[in-house]
Amino acid sequence: MKAIAVKPGIPNTLHLTDFPAPRVDEIANGRGVLVRVLRVGVDGTDKEINAAEYGQAPPGCDFLVIGHEGFGQVEAVGPNVTEVRPGDYVVATVRRPGSSIYDLIGTNDMTTDDTYFERGINLRHGYMSQYYVDDAEFIVKIPQGLREVGVLLEPTTVVEKGIAQAYEIQRRLRVWRPRRAAVMGAGTIGLLATLVLRLKGLQVTTFGKTPKPYLNSELIEAIGATYQSTDELSIIAGAKKHGPFDIIFEATGFSPAVFDSMQALGKNGVLVLSSVTGGDRRIEVPADKINLDFVLGNKVMVGTVNARLWFFFTQYSRLFESRACALRTGDVGSIPHSASALHWVQHGRWRSPAHCRHSA
Amino acid sequence: MKAIAVKPGIPNTLHLTDFPAPRVDEIANGRGVLVRVLRVGVDGTDKEINAAEYGQAPPGCDFLVIGHEGFGQVEAVGPNVTEVRPGDYVVATVRRPGSSIYDLIGTNDMTTDDTYFERGINLRHGYMSQYYVDDAEFIVKIPQGLREVGVLLEPTTVVEKGIAQAYEIQRRLRVWRPRRAAVMGAGTIGLLATLVLRLKGLQVTTFGKTPKPYLNSELIEAIGATYQSTDELSIIAGAKKHGPFDIIFEATGFSPAVFDSMQALGKNGVLVLSSVTGGDRRIEVPADKINLDFVLGNKVMVGTVNARLWFFFTQYSRLFESRACALRTGDVGSIPHSASALHWVQHGRWRSPAHCRHSA
Repeated sequence: MKAIAVKPGIPNTLHLTDFPAPRVDEIANGRGVLVRVLRVGVDGTDKEINAAEYGQAPPGCDFLVIGHEGFGQVEAVGPNVTEVRPGDYVVATVRRPGSSIYDLIGTNDMTTDDTYFERGINLRHGYMSQYYVDDAEFIVKIPQGLREVGVLLEPTTVVEKGIAQAYEIQRRLRVWRPRRAAVMGAGTIGLLATLVLRLKGLQVTTFGKTPKPYLNSELIEAIGATYQSTDELSIIAGAKKHGPFDIIFEATGFSPAVFDSMQALGKNGVLVLSSVTGGDRRIEVPADKINLDFVLGNKVMVGTVNARLWFFFTQYSRLFESRACALRTGDVGSIPHSASALHWVQHGRWRSPAHCRHSA
Repeated sequence: MKAIAVKPGIPNTLHLTDFPAPRVDEIANGRGVLVRVLRVGVDGTDKEINAAEYGQAPPGCDFLVIGHEGFGQVEAVGPNVTEVRPGDYVVATVRRPGSSIYDLIGTNDMTTDDTYFERGINLRHGYMSQYYVDDAEFIVKIPQGLREVGVLLEPTTVVEKGIAQAYEIQRRLRVWRPRRAAVMGAGTIGLLATLVLRLKGLQVTTFGKTPKPYLNSELIEAIGATYQSTDELSIIAGAKKHGPFDIIFEATGFSPAVFDSMQALGKNGVLVLSSVTGGDRRIEVPADKINLDFVLGNKVMVGTVNARLWFFFTQYSRLFESRACALRTGDVGSIPHSASALHWVQHGRWRSPAHCRHSA
């Protein structure tokens, strides 16, 4: 079968490859699920992997199939699979459990292990192939009605987990009624964070680099948020105009924005960091001021990675909403239409939204 | 009466002054409590106020009496005071309520107001005077048996509030069993944080600048913690040796230590910031790495200021413990012995522990 892979550790090795399709009996205990891939989303992490800043091949392998935002249809199941059957639409989670207590209680997104096993990212092949197989344990059934947006489930869970962390943290305040939110970055995660925060009733300002209007700024404004280009107004100046922000979701992939966000946060505010920044950038920061404002304002910053299975099973409603908002971002065609995925990852932008719809 | 004051906004104006003692009937509704000051602790904030980096005089006044860690004895009470009576030992809280929802529900340490009213710090005279008067609402009775350590109650509440915030935040993990803690700074707050974390059963490494042995390193080791001089090992190298740290309490007053602490934090760790850094220091930081580690490790940083009344009423047990540990730090004699306080604030170190005991 065809697949899109990189050679981890060497920049710009993205290539189309071919290897035997997996079989359902490769999974133990008759629990295998063979999935035909219909769509795969791509994001900044894929670009970082292709830039060799992140990601490792599976043991014994010199390539890594990328793609961690998958959507597909069950082709076959093992004899002990009761959760799904052939024809069902499904999404598979990304991270596989390690051995820490957090992995054992079903929260592998909080693992304290040093090694992460993540499909399409680290040590496990991803979903940018015609087929994949996995244990039914990690397969989430998607209602038929969500066929058009199912590929957004994985990035939606990342956003939902981050925001859930923020709300759990803020229980410490006894009373917390956030009003103004900022989202840093207008890529897939930024768009979905904008959507989720709007659905919670917050005023949202989403900061992106590109001057408006363009597709993403239009999507943002269509759901009642404000788009602010940082070419016109810096994050800190933007916070003076649109803030102070009770919650900020950082998703730029650009670490200087993280330190600007610390300064854009209001009193009792919470800053959620979700960007993967695998480089070695160093910057100068106003250290006294950042610290003093955190202390006097009782502010919180929380990092968040991935999402556990629970979020996959509970976030359908967001997908219905996202469909209603026509928010379909960064998803690419299935493998037979892999050219657009290659183009996106290599050039940082998807080529043609109209051609990226379901095509299996 | 005598008092120690500064002229806010002008560096190094610490001076002994004299003005009329307050009267119990200055407080409305017969709720006044007149307190004779027995001891006042001093800390880094006092130094910052004397350096004109922080603090404002009360309205209509050109000086600010400093001192926010007070301990005294009730001299007189208004007719409607039932909580304390003359002869009782008492401590007064520092911050006075503003108007935000957090002030209204008794958590003025979480205020979202822009203006803080804090005795001895901002807009209200402090306790480094022979007498002060306040509303019974803000006066906490101290058991006779805690006479020797009562002056430590205020800084203990700062530590307890910060650590309580950390534990509340970590409820998000479902399971959190911290083992290794670090305390940055070995001043009053650092010593008390070391004590509180030791009492929770953690292994504690306390980082200070001064090479050991000296008084504070000996106190730290006497309670079973490890003292690490940053002259010998940087915070980041120290974390490799003694960490990774599940919780870090930052109390150096030196903002570069904050950014080093971010890098010394373990996975799922929580960094509590308590230093007031009123300067304008800028430093270079490894931005990509700090952000990436926060994201992949689900780490949290929380700022904490002050403590609400609740912590004053609930922290006696810590004081009994601190007495048992002979941990008496930074407290200075009452006003008649004010020379040592002047010396401490001006030179950053108290002159003679033996002479700083109770002397009223």
